Amino acid sequence: MIRVNGNYLKLAGNYLFSEVANRVAKYQEENPGARVIRLGIGDVTEPFGPVITGALRGAVDEMSRRGTFQGYRSDKGYEFLREKIAQHDFLSRGVAMDPEEIFISTGAKEDTANIQELFHRDTRIAVPDPVYPVYVDSNVMAGRTGGFSDGRYGGITYLDCTGENSFRPDLPDGEVDLIYLCFPNNPTGQVATKDDLKKWVDYAKTKGAVILYDAAYEAFIRDDALPHSIFEVPGAREVAIEFRSLSKTAGFTGTRLSYTIIPRELRIPGDDGGSHSLNQLWDRRQSTKFNGVAYIIQRGAEAVFTEEGRREIEATIGYYLENAAIIRRGLEKNGIEYTGGVHSPYIWLRAPGGLSSWEFFHRLLDQCQVVGTPGAGFGRCGEGFFRLTAFGSRENVIEAMERFSRLK
Amino acid sequence: MIRVNGNYLKLAGNYLFSEVANRVAKYQEENPGARVIRLGIGDVTEPFGPVITGALRGAVDEMSRRGTFQGYRSDKGYEFLREKIAQHDFLSRGVAMDPEEIFISTGAKEDTANIQELFHRDTRIAVPDPVYPVYVDSNVMAGRTGGFSDGRYGGITYLDCTGENSFRPDLPDGEVDLIYLCFPNNPTGQVATKDDLKKWVDYAKTKGAVILYDAAYEAFIRDDALPHSIFEVPGAREVAIEFRSLSKTAGFTGTRLSYTIIPRELRIPGDDGGSHSLNQLWDRRQSTKFNGVAYIIQRGAEAVFTEEGRREIEATIGYYLENAAIIRRGLEKNGIEYTGGVHSPYIWLRAPGGLSSWEFFHRLLDQCQVVGTPGAGFGRCGEGFFRLTAFGSRENVIEAMERFSRLK
Repeated sequence: MIRVNGNYLKLAGNYLFSEVANRVAKYQEENPGARVIRLGIGDVTEPFGPVITGALRGAVDEMSRRGTFQGYRSDKGYEFLREKIAQHDFLSRGVAMDPEEIFISTGAKEDTANIQELFHRDTRIAVPDPVYPVYVDSNVMAGRTGGFSDGRYGGITYLDCTGENSFRPDLPDGEVDLIYLCFPNNPTGQVATKDDLKKWVDYAKTKGAVILYDAAYEAFIRDDALPHSIFEVPGAREVAIEFRSLSKTAGFTGTRLSYTIIPRELRIPGDDGGSHSLNQLWDRRQSTKFNGVAYIIQRGAEAVFTEEGRREIEATIGYYLENAAIIRRGLEKNGIEYTGGVHSPYIWLRAPGGLSSWEFFHRLLDQCQVVGTPGAGFGRCGEGFFRLTAFGSRENVIEAMERFSRLK
Repeated sequence: MIRVNGNYLKLAGNYLFSEVANRVAKYQEENPGARVIRLGIGDVTEPFGPVITGALRGAVDEMSRRGTFQGYRSDKGYEFLREKIAQHDFLSRGVAMDPEEIFISTGAKEDTANIQELFHRDTRIAVPDPVYPVYVDSNVMAGRTGGFSDGRYGGITYLDCTGENSFRPDLPDGEVDLIYLCFPNNPTGQVATKDDLKKWVDYAKTKGAVILYDAAYEAFIRDDALPHSIFEVPGAREVAIEFRSLSKTAGFTGTRLSYTIIPRELRIPGDDGGSHSLNQLWDRRQSTKFNGVAYIIQRGAEAVFTEEGRREIEATIGYYLENAAIIRRGLEKNGIEYTGGVHSPYIWLRAPGGLSSWEFFHRLLDQCQVVGTPGAGFGRCGEGFFRLTAFGSRENVIEAMERFSRLK
């Protein structure tokens, strides 16, 4: 008789953002007149400009003509796109990257969730706390953890991110094999310096560990001294995988395109005594379980990496960063402590009056009709914190912050 | 120290279609003047008609305007699409299906590869032989098999499909928990009657097994008495999951949209003693590891389920079926034994002269510059067979079959 994967039964509660959506839906049902402003899920709101739109249109036209119609192609993505990424994201910052080291995918969520498949089931993982839930849940589902109690899963090393370490994780006490890092960070908005990353690269080299570096928000960095990629740190090519996304960068949350970088030098041992290329293993994983991103979408993405496209999305990123500044000023005016919101679309605030994260969630929803994300949903160290995002329209962001003055 | 997932190291050779592509690339490099015709990978060639193109264009325009721009939405897919699928694919054939039982995804390859995650690691799986390699490889990667020897993995129950059973699998001798079926079949082109499917539904009910039914090619069925869906068989809602795709149906191989049907009645036990809804577990899987299909693509897909859209794709399917008829006639003319090619885009032929599958692959490539897929790549029972697909352009199909007369 068939049985379910018991690891799924260990999962604690709903996926965070589904839970938030459910509670907001309930509130709206009970308060049909309320105009709710959502600064919760990190979803973009600004439409595509003419460059990306034009590229998408052109690709649709190609699909309607024999000769330019596109069917299956490499699940790794079109070369025209991988070459532009290598040039724009890496070479322009002095990092050589072969297009063969770049894998196009439908989302950094998918890739950060799936990448753990490449590793042994006994892999000891480390995640920051607070953390993007996908890193953890995907490992729970794979059976790498014990049960959930007191806000944490057994078997995971949690790296506390608190005010004391400026929300930047310290090296673990014990040994770990696989380390998830994210800078600019979701949810805290913190950034890492090259020295911060060097510390982790050195650790990984010493311990034979691998770093999974989520750089989905790198485009928000405005200080040229800060690294956009972990591969700006010497030696990282032997120990790190990097995830990037057009979701927040170029407004692709509903259009779906990301990419994952796995350098050729990254090889790890197997129980067979051999040394195995993670680039090749991921290639095999993707060719078995994935069939590539739609041609139309890849052409739209290509436009992001042209000079005109870049100007288009830089304007939008600037718009969101100005939103972040408005949120920061609003919080200051209301005497609410926060971090982030610079080089990042995320603002991480301390719930005022010693409220718990979910208490503040409901208070903010009830009194201000503003939706944010409870910090506790990102981990135990997130309890008492709350995440706002800068992705609303300007009017909504301004109004949301005005409504903060209603908070009692 | 980190180690790789040792199960990946059990995988035998490359993914079949990558291997075919590599060998063809090598041939073309060595024979730059050769005009190779590809009837190998099941890739469509006909461009989108005006209805689908118009829907895609309209969606691109929406993405360029504030107010109609789309960001994140349910990873399950838009209701406008799920409702049309329920109506068109199921209600129209007398099968009630709730849109909540339909999950939109980027590909049947992805879903048939990922679905095994929901089941216990000790699940005993059964696959037809020959078989679409993804069913097997995804289970190898998950650790449900032993090593590979003599063309098969240990721990899998292979259901032989040969001339003796008209390429339709018989019930297994021993007990199995999870059964992969595909009709119209890839690669053999065989179809199943309702009685065939009832046999499997009854088996699953008796044994507490689950059927994974791949109906990616249902649109090619031209006999109204043949079932398009396993849910046309009474009782199937309690034991089956169905996979469908627009890839071959509507020319979406390069545009990526499929859907998976998990009825609410499908519940299986867990080690916790409870009974668990696979619909809910898949929902949780998808919300953790997937972020939905691009809005633009979902709008294009919606058009497929309108009356005009249907006419458009039916014309294309008719075109491919006529290609299949041309291939069948060509094989008959050359005295080559085959099956399939009716209600199916696949023709399954016996390699002439007692050649092995790969021998015939190279002979056909060398003497005719025609690419097909070696049957042995689909399993041990595929040895000595060869798959052709009806997806070429008419001119190419005609020329390919003319070239068959060069075979020595």
